Amino acid sequence: MRFSPLVEQLMEAFRVLPGVGPKTAQRMAMHLLERDRDGGQRLSEVLQVALKEVGYCGRCRTLTEEPVCALCQSPRRDDSLLCIVESPADQLAIEEAGGYLGRYFVLHGHLSPLDGIGPEDIGLDQLEARVAEGGIHEVVLATNPTVEGEATAHYIAAQLGDYGVAMSRLAYGVPMGGELEYVDGGTLSRAFNGRLAFRSE
Amino acid sequence: MRFSPLVEQLMEAFRVLPGVGPKTAQRMAMHLLERDRDGGQRLSEVLQVALKEVGYCGRCRTLTEEPVCALCQSPRRDDSLLCIVESPADQLAIEEAGGYLGRYFVLHGHLSPLDGIGPEDIGLDQLEARVAEGGIHEVVLATNPTVEGEATAHYIAAQLGDYGVAMSRLAYGVPMGGELEYVDGGTLSRAFNGRLAFRSE
Repeated sequence: MRFSPLVEQLMEAFRVLPGVGPKTAQRMAMHLLERDRDGGQRLSEVLQVALKEVGYCGRCRTLTEEPVCALCQSPRRDDSLLCIVESPADQLAIEEAGGYLGRYFVLHGHLSPLDGIGPEDIGLDQLEARVAEGGIHEVVLATNPTVEGEATAHYIAAQLGDYGVAMSRLAYGVPMGGELEYVDGGTLSRAFNGRLAFRSE
Repeated sequence: MRFSPLVEQLMEAFRVLPGVGPKTAQRMAMHLLERDRDGGQRLSEVLQVALKEVGYCGRCRTLTEEPVCALCQSPRRDDSLLCIVESPADQLAIEEAGGYLGRYFVLHGHLSPLDGIGPEDIGLDQLEARVAEGGIHEVVLATNPTVEGEATAHYIAAQLGDYGVAMSRLAYGVPMGGELEYVDGGTLSRAFNGRLAFRSE
Protein backbone atom coordinates (compact mmCIF):
# COMPACT_ATOMS: atom_id res chain seq x y z
CA MET A 1 0.00 0.00 0.00
CA ARG A 2 0.98 3.56 -0.62
CA PHE A 3 -1.13 6.66 -0.16
CA SER A 4 -3.89 7.36 -2.67
CA PRO A 5 -2.71 8.43 -6.17
CA LEU A 6 -3.47 12.12 -5.64
CA VAL A 7 -1.69 12.23 -2.27
CA GLU A 8 1.29 10.46 -3.87
CA GLN A 9 1.29 13.04 -6.69
CA LEU A 10 1.29 15.85 -4.15
CA MET A 11 4.25 14.33 -2.31
CA GLU A 12 6.07 13.94 -5.62
CA ALA A 13 5.31 17.57 -6.54
CA PHE A 14 6.91 18.84 -3.31
CA ARG A 15 10.16 17.15 -4.35
CA VAL A 16 10.85 20.04 -6.78
CA LEU A 17 11.70 22.20 -3.76
CA PRO A 18 15.39 22.42 -2.89
CA GLY A 19 16.49 20.10 -0.09
CA VAL A 20 13.17 18.23 0.05
CA GLY A 21 13.50 14.43 -0.01
CA PRO A 22 10.76 11.78 0.18
CA LYS A 23 10.27 11.97 3.95
CA THR A 24 10.03 15.77 4.07
CA ALA A 25 7.70 15.79 1.06
CA GLN A 26 5.43 13.33 2.86
CA ARG A 27 5.48 15.47 5.98
CA MET A 28 4.60 18.60 3.97
CA ALA A 29 1.73 16.92 2.11
CA MET A 30 0.34 15.43 5.35
CA HIS A 31 0.66 18.74 7.19
CA LEU A 32 -1.29 20.69 4.57
CA LEU A 33 -3.98 18.01 4.04
CA GLU A 34 -4.44 17.23 7.73
CA ARG A 35 -3.83 20.49 9.52
CA ASP A 36 -3.60 23.55 7.29
CA ARG A 37 -5.77 23.43 4.20
CA ASP A 38 -6.22 27.21 4.21
CA GLY A 39 -2.45 27.72 4.19
CA GLY A 40 -2.12 25.17 1.40
CA GLN A 41 -4.82 26.89 -0.61
CA ARG A 42 -3.06 30.20 -0.21
CA LEU A 43 0.32 28.69 -1.18
CA SER A 44 -1.21 27.20 -4.32
CA GLU A 45 -2.81 30.50 -5.33
CA VAL A 46 0.16 32.77 -4.57
CA LEU A 47 2.50 30.37 -6.37
CA GLN A 48 0.22 30.39 -9.41
CA VAL A 49 0.05 34.20 -9.53
CA ALA A 50 3.77 34.68 -8.82
CA LEU A 51 4.81 32.28 -11.59
CA LYS A 52 2.53 34.13 -14.00
CA GLU A 53 3.33 37.71 -12.99
CA VAL A 54 6.91 37.79 -11.72
CA GLY A 55 9.47 38.42 -14.44
CA TYR A 56 12.69 40.37 -14.81
CA CYS A 57 12.97 44.12 -14.26
CA GLY A 58 13.50 45.77 -17.65
CA ARG A 59 16.44 47.74 -16.31
CA CYS A 60 18.29 45.62 -13.74
CA ARG A 61 16.81 42.15 -14.41
CA THR A 62 15.95 41.49 -10.77
CA LEU A 63 12.75 39.56 -10.08
CA THR A 64 9.68 41.81 -10.02
CA GLU A 65 6.05 41.87 -11.12
CA GLU A 66 6.45 45.49 -12.34
CA PRO A 67 8.00 46.42 -15.72
CA VAL A 68 10.71 48.24 -13.76
CA CYS A 69 11.51 47.39 -10.13
CA ALA A 70 11.12 49.74 -7.16
CA LEU A 71 14.87 50.15 -6.67
CA CYS A 72 15.44 51.13 -10.33
CA GLN A 73 12.55 53.60 -10.03
CA SER A 74 13.84 55.16 -6.81
CA PRO A 75 15.18 58.70 -7.28
CA ARG A 76 17.32 58.33 -4.15
CA ARG A 77 19.90 55.95 -5.63
CA ASP A 78 23.22 56.94 -7.20
CA ASP A 79 23.12 56.42 -10.98
CA SER A 80 26.89 56.57 -11.30
CA LEU A 81 27.43 53.28 -9.42
CA LEU A 82 26.41 49.90 -10.81
CA CYS A 83 26.79 46.68 -8.82
CA ILE A 84 26.67 43.39 -10.73
CA VAL A 85 25.41 40.37 -8.81
CA GLU A 86 24.61 36.77 -9.72
CA SER A 87 21.19 36.56 -8.08
CA PRO A 88 18.41 38.56 -6.44
CA ALA A 89 19.37 36.85 -3.15
CA ASP A 90 22.91 38.31 -3.47
CA GLN A 91 21.39 41.72 -4.18
CA LEU A 92 19.27 41.45 -1.05
CA ALA A 93 22.30 40.43 1.04
CA ILE A 94 24.17 43.57 -0.09
CA GLU A 95 21.12 45.76 0.56
CA GLU A 96 20.71 44.30 4.04
CA ALA A 97 24.40 44.89 4.80
CA GLY A 98 23.65 48.56 4.09
CA GLY A 99 25.98 51.27 2.86
CA TYR A 100 25.68 50.77 -0.90
CA LEU A 101 23.45 53.35 -2.56
CA GLY A 102 24.00 52.75 -6.27
CA ARG A 103 22.06 50.68 -8.78
CA TYR A 104 22.22 46.95 -9.53
CA PHE A 105 22.36 44.56 -12.44
CA VAL A 106 21.35 40.92 -11.88
CA LEU A 107 22.87 38.18 -14.04
CA HIS A 108 20.76 35.25 -12.82
CA GLY A 109 23.74 32.94 -12.95
CA HIS A 110 27.27 33.02 -14.25
CA LEU A 111 29.05 32.11 -17.48
CA SER A 112 29.25 28.35 -17.84
CA PRO A 113 30.23 27.28 -21.35
CA LEU A 114 29.99 23.58 -20.45
CA ASP A 115 26.33 24.06 -19.53
CA GLY A 116 25.74 26.17 -22.64
CA ILE A 117 25.34 29.38 -20.65
CA GLY A 118 26.87 32.19 -22.69
CA PRO A 119 26.98 36.00 -22.36
CA GLU A 120 23.45 36.57 -23.72
CA ASP A 121 21.95 34.11 -21.23
CA ILE A 122 23.14 36.24 -18.34
CA GLY A 123 22.13 39.51 -20.00
CA LEU A 124 25.59 40.84 -20.82
CA ASP A 125 24.33 42.45 -24.06
CA GLN A 126 21.77 44.38 -21.99
CA LEU A 127 24.50 45.27 -19.47
CA GLU A 128 26.79 46.63 -22.19
CA ALA A 129 23.94 48.69 -23.67
CA ARG A 130 23.29 50.16 -20.24
CA VAL A 131 26.93 51.12 -19.68
CA ALA A 132 27.07 52.52 -23.23
CA GLU A 133 24.24 54.94 -22.28
CA GLY A 134 26.86 56.73 -20.16
CA GLY A 135 26.52 58.18 -16.66
CA ILE A 136 28.11 55.18 -14.90
CA HIS A 137 31.46 55.93 -13.28
CA GLU A 138 32.11 52.69 -11.47
CA VAL A 139 31.05 49.09 -11.94
CA VAL A 140 31.33 46.87 -8.85
CA LEU A 141 31.78 43.26 -9.94
CA ALA A 142 30.08 41.48 -7.05
CA THR A 143 29.84 38.01 -8.58
CA ASN A 144 30.59 35.15 -6.19
CA PRO A 145 34.22 34.49 -5.17
CA THR A 146 34.09 31.11 -6.95
CA VAL A 147 35.90 29.95 -10.08
CA GLU A 148 32.82 30.65 -12.22
CA GLY A 149 32.11 33.98 -10.54
CA GLU A 150 35.72 35.13 -11.02
CA ALA A 151 35.68 34.07 -14.68
CA THR A 152 32.42 35.94 -15.22
CA ALA A 153 33.88 39.07 -13.55
CA HIS A 154 36.94 38.89 -15.82
CA TYR A 155 34.76 38.49 -18.89
CA ILE A 156 32.62 41.49 -17.96
CA ALA A 157 35.67 43.63 -17.15
CA ALA A 158 37.10 42.88 -20.62
CA GLN A 159 33.75 43.52 -22.30
CA LEU A 160 33.26 46.89 -20.62
CA GLY A 161 36.94 47.89 -20.87
CA ASP A 162 36.39 50.36 -23.72
CA TYR A 163 33.80 52.48 -21.95
CA GLY A 164 36.21 54.15 -19.55
CA VAL A 165 34.38 53.17 -16.34
CA ALA A 166 36.24 52.21 -13.19
CA MET A 167 35.92 48.52 -12.28
CA SER A 168 36.11 47.14 -8.77
CA ARG A 169 35.68 43.80 -7.08
CA LEU A 170 34.62 43.08 -3.48
CA ALA A 171 37.60 42.83 -1.09
CA TYR A 172 38.84 39.36 -0.22
CA GLY A 173 39.84 38.57 3.33
CA VAL A 174 38.91 36.90 6.57
CA PRO A 175 35.21 37.08 7.45
CA MET A 176 34.27 39.14 10.50
CA GLY A 177 33.76 37.11 13.65
CA GLY A 178 35.46 34.02 12.21
CA GLU A 179 38.45 32.24 13.70
CA LEU A 180 41.66 32.12 11.69
CA GLU A 181 42.07 28.45 12.49
CA TYR A 182 39.03 27.65 10.35
CA VAL A 183 39.71 30.00 7.44
CA ASP A 184 40.85 28.20 4.26
CA GLY A 185 44.39 28.71 2.96
CA GLY A 186 43.38 30.58 -0.20
CA THR A 187 41.42 33.17 1.75
CA LEU A 188 44.14 33.52 4.38
CA SER A 189 46.84 34.07 1.79
CA ARG A 190 44.67 36.69 0.06
CA ALA A 191 44.05 38.40 3.41
CA PHE A 192 47.79 38.39 4.13
CA ASN A 193 48.74 39.88 0.78
CA GLY A 194 46.03 42.52 1.10
CA ARG A 195 46.86 43.39 4.72
CA LEU A 196 45.89 46.88 5.87
CA ALA A 197 47.81 49.44 7.93
CA PHE A 198 46.62 49.17 11.54
CA ARG A 199 45.15 52.31 13.00
CA SER A 200 44.78 52.47 16.73
CA GLU A 201 42.32 55.16 17.68
CA MET B 1 14.77 47.06 0.15
CA ARG B 2 13.05 43.72 0.23
CA PHE B 3 11.96 41.66 -2.74
CA SER B 4 8.94 42.79 -4.75
CA PRO B 5 5.55 42.41 -2.99
CA LEU B 6 4.54 39.29 -4.91
CA VAL B 7 7.88 37.56 -4.29
CA GLU B 8 7.59 38.45 -0.60
CA GLN B 9 4.07 37.01 -0.53
CA LEU B 10 5.35 33.80 -2.09
CA MET B 11 8.10 33.51 0.52
CA GLU B 12 5.53 34.12 3.25
CA ALA B 13 3.22 31.47 1.76
CA PHE B 14 5.97 28.83 1.94
CA ARG B 15 6.19 29.40 5.69
CA VAL B 16 3.03 27.32 6.19
CA LEU B 17 5.13 24.22 5.47
CA PRO B 18 6.49 22.40 8.54
CA GLY B 19 10.09 23.23 9.40
CA VAL B 20 10.33 26.07 6.86
CA GLY B 21 11.77 29.32 8.26
CA PRO B 22 12.43 32.64 6.47
CA LYS B 23 15.73 31.55 4.87
CA THR B 24 14.39 28.26 3.55
CA ALA B 25 11.22 29.97 2.29
CA GLN B 26 13.39 32.48 0.39
CA ARG B 27 15.47 29.67 -1.09
CA MET B 28 12.32 27.80 -2.19
CA ALA B 29 10.75 30.88 -3.79
CA MET B 30 14.00 31.78 -5.58
CA HIS B 31 14.52 28.22 -6.77
CA LEU B 32 11.09 27.97 -8.36
CA LEU B 33 11.13 31.49 -9.88
CA GLU B 34 14.70 31.28 -11.14
CA ARG B 35 15.23 27.66 -12.05
CA ASP B 36 12.12 25.52 -12.08
CA ARG B 37 8.95 27.32 -13.14
CA ASP B 38 7.50 24.15 -14.63
CA GLY B 39 7.95 22.30 -11.36
CA GLY B 40 6.39 25.24 -9.50
CA GLN B 41 3.45 25.30 -11.88
CA ARG B 42 2.90 21.58 -11.34
CA LEU B 43 3.16 21.95 -7.55
CA SER B 44 0.58 24.74 -7.61
CA GLU B 45 -1.85 22.72 -9.72
CA VAL B 46 -1.48 19.40 -7.89
CA LEU B 47 -1.84 21.17 -4.53
CA GLN B 48 -5.01 22.88 -5.73
CA VAL B 49 -6.55 19.61 -6.96
CA ALA B 50 -5.45 17.61 -3.90
CA LEU B 51 -6.92 20.14 -1.46
CA LYS B 52 -10.18 20.05 -3.39
CA GLU B 53 -10.46 16.30 -3.98
CA VAL B 54 -8.73 14.54 -1.08
CA GLY B 55 -10.99 13.84 1.86
CA TYR B 56 -11.50 11.04 4.35
CA CYS B 57 -12.34 7.47 3.37
CA GLY B 58 -15.96 6.84 4.35
CA ARG B 59 -14.99 3.62 6.10
CA CYS B 60 -11.55 4.05 7.67
CA ARG B 61 -11.10 7.84 7.51
CA THR B 62 -7.68 7.67 5.86
CA LEU B 63 -6.89 10.35 3.25
CA THR B 64 -8.20 9.47 -0.20
CA GLU B 65 -9.84 11.08 -3.21
CA GLU B 66 -12.22 8.09 -3.52
CA PRO B 67 -15.39 7.70 -1.41
CA VAL B 68 -13.81 4.51 0.00
CA CYS B 69 -10.05 3.91 -0.08
CA ALA B 70 -8.29 1.10 -1.95
CA LEU B 71 -7.38 -0.77 1.23
CA CYS B 72 -10.98 -0.78 2.50
CA GLN B 73 -12.13 -2.00 -0.92
CA SER B 74 -9.55 -4.77 -1.10
CA PRO B 75 -11.08 -8.25 -0.75
CA ARG B 76 -7.73 -9.64 0.43
CA ARG B 77 -7.76 -8.05 3.90
CA ASP B 78 -8.98 -9.67 7.08
CA ASP B 79 -12.24 -8.06 8.21
CA SER B 80 -11.95 -9.49 11.71
CA LEU B 81 -8.91 -7.34 12.61
CA LEU B 82 -9.08 -3.56 13.04
CA CYS B 83 -6.01 -1.45 13.73
CA ILE B 84 -6.55 2.06 15.11
CA VAL B 85 -3.88 4.64 14.25
CA GLU B 86 -3.50 8.37 14.81
CA SER B 87 -2.50 9.32 11.26
CA PRO B 88 -2.24 8.08 7.66
CA ALA B 89 1.56 8.26 8.10
CA ASP B 90 1.33 5.78 11.01
CA GLN B 91 -0.85 3.54 8.88
CA LEU B 92 1.75 3.64 6.09
CA ALA B 93 4.54 2.81 8.55
CA ILE B 94 2.66 -0.31 9.71
CA GLU B 95 1.91 -1.33 6.12
CA GLU B 96 5.57 -0.93 5.16
CA ALA B 97 6.66 -2.98 8.15
CA GLY B 98 4.51 -5.74 6.63
CA GLY B 99 2.77 -8.65 8.33
CA TYR B 100 -0.52 -6.99 9.28
CA LEU B 101 -3.36 -7.95 6.97
CA GLY B 102 -6.42 -6.54 8.72
CA ARG B 103 -8.27 -3.25 8.26
CA TYR B 104 -7.54 0.20 9.70
CA PHE B 105 -9.27 3.11 11.32
CA VAL B 106 -7.58 6.52 11.27
CA LEU B 107 -8.27 9.02 14.06
CA HIS B 108 -6.41 12.04 12.60
CA GLY B 109 -5.13 13.02 16.03
CA HIS B 110 -5.77 12.02 19.62
CA LEU B 111 -8.05 13.14 22.41
CA SER B 112 -6.95 16.50 23.74
CA PRO B 113 -9.58 18.15 25.95
CA LEU B 114 -7.40 21.23 26.50
CA ASP B 115 -7.37 21.87 22.74
CA GLY B 116 -11.09 21.13 22.54
CA ILE B 117 -10.55 17.86 20.67
CA GLY B 118 -13.18 15.41 21.88
CA PRO B 119 -14.32 11.92 20.82
CA GLU B 120 -16.36 13.09 17.81
CA ASP B 121 -13.43 15.08 16.42
CA ILE B 122 -11.39 11.91 16.07
CA GLY B 123 -14.29 9.87 14.70
CA LEU B 124 -14.97 7.70 17.73
CA ASP B 125 -18.74 7.68 17.05
CA GLN B 126 -18.00 6.30 13.58
CA LEU B 127 -15.58 3.76 15.10
CA GLU B 128 -18.17 2.54 17.58
CA ALA B 129 -20.77 2.19 14.81
CA ARG B 130 -18.30 0.13 12.84
CA VAL B 131 -17.55 -2.22 15.73
CA ALA B 132 -21.29 -2.47 16.46
CA GLU B 133 -21.80 -3.85 12.93
CA GLY B 134 -20.10 -7.01 14.18
CA GLY B 135 -17.50 -9.21 12.48
CA ILE B 136 -14.52 -7.66 14.25
CA HIS B 137 -12.74 -10.02 16.66
CA GLU B 138 -9.77 -7.91 17.66
CA VAL B 139 -9.04 -4.21 17.84
CA VAL B 140 -5.33 -3.26 17.85
CA LEU B 141 -4.90 0.09 19.60
CA ALA B 142 -1.88 1.43 17.71
CA THR B 143 -2.04 5.03 18.91
CA ASN B 144 1.35 6.58 19.72
CA PRO B 145 3.14 5.52 22.93
CA THR B 146 2.76 9.08 24.28
CA VAL B 147 0.66 10.36 27.16
CA GLU B 148 -2.09 11.51 24.75
CA GLY B 149 -1.90 8.33 22.68
CA GLU B 150 -2.16 6.15 25.80
CA ALA B 151 -5.11 8.18 27.12
CA THR B 152 -6.86 7.86 23.76
CA ALA B 153 -6.26 4.08 23.74
CA HIS B 154 -7.74 3.78 27.23
CA TYR B 155 -10.77 5.83 26.24
CA ILE B 156 -11.40 3.70 23.15
CA ALA B 157 -10.94 0.45 25.13
CA ALA B 158 -13.57 1.64 27.63
CA GLN B 159 -15.91 2.77 24.86
CA LEU B 160 -15.75 -0.53 22.99
CA GLY B 161 -15.71 -2.68 26.14
CA ASP B 162 -19.32 -3.80 25.76
CA TYR B 163 -18.97 -5.25 22.28
CA GLY B 164 -16.99 -8.31 23.33
CA VAL B 165 -14.03 -7.74 21.01
CA ALA B 166 -10.44 -8.51 22.08
CA MET B 167 -8.29 -5.39 22.55
CA SER B 168 -4.55 -5.27 22.12
CA ARG B 169 -1.84 -2.67 22.20
CA LEU B 170 1.55 -2.70 20.39
CA ALA B 171 4.33 -4.26 22.51
CA TYR B 172 6.64 -1.89 24.39
CA GLY B 173 10.34 -2.59 24.50
CA VAL B 174 13.76 -1.73 23.20
CA PRO B 175 13.86 -0.78 19.51
CA MET B 176 15.71 -3.16 17.16
CA GLY B 177 19.28 -2.12 16.39
CA GLY B 178 19.38 0.41 19.23
CA GLU B 179 21.92 0.48 22.04
CA LEU B 180 20.68 0.01 25.60
CA GLU B 181 22.85 2.91 26.76
CA TYR B 182 20.68 5.33 24.82
CA VAL B 183 17.26 3.86 25.62
CA ASP B 184 15.25 5.96 28.08
CA GLY B 185 14.46 4.61 31.53
CA GLY B 186 10.72 4.26 31.00
CA THR B 187 11.19 2.10 27.91
CA LEU B 188 13.90 0.04 29.58
CA SER B 189 11.80 -0.66 32.64
CA ARG B 190 8.87 -1.69 30.38
CA ALA B 191 11.19 -3.97 28.41
CA PHE B 192 12.48 -5.52 31.65
CA ASN B 193 9.04 -6.20 33.06
CA GLY B 194 7.88 -7.65 29.76
CA ARG B 195 10.98 -9.79 29.24
CA LEU B 196 10.54 -12.88 27.07
CA ALA B 197 11.76 -16.44 27.49
CA PHE B 198 14.92 -16.84 25.44
CA ARG B 199 14.83 -19.52 22.81
CA SER B 200 18.15 -20.65 21.38
CA GLU B 201 17.63 -22.44 18.08
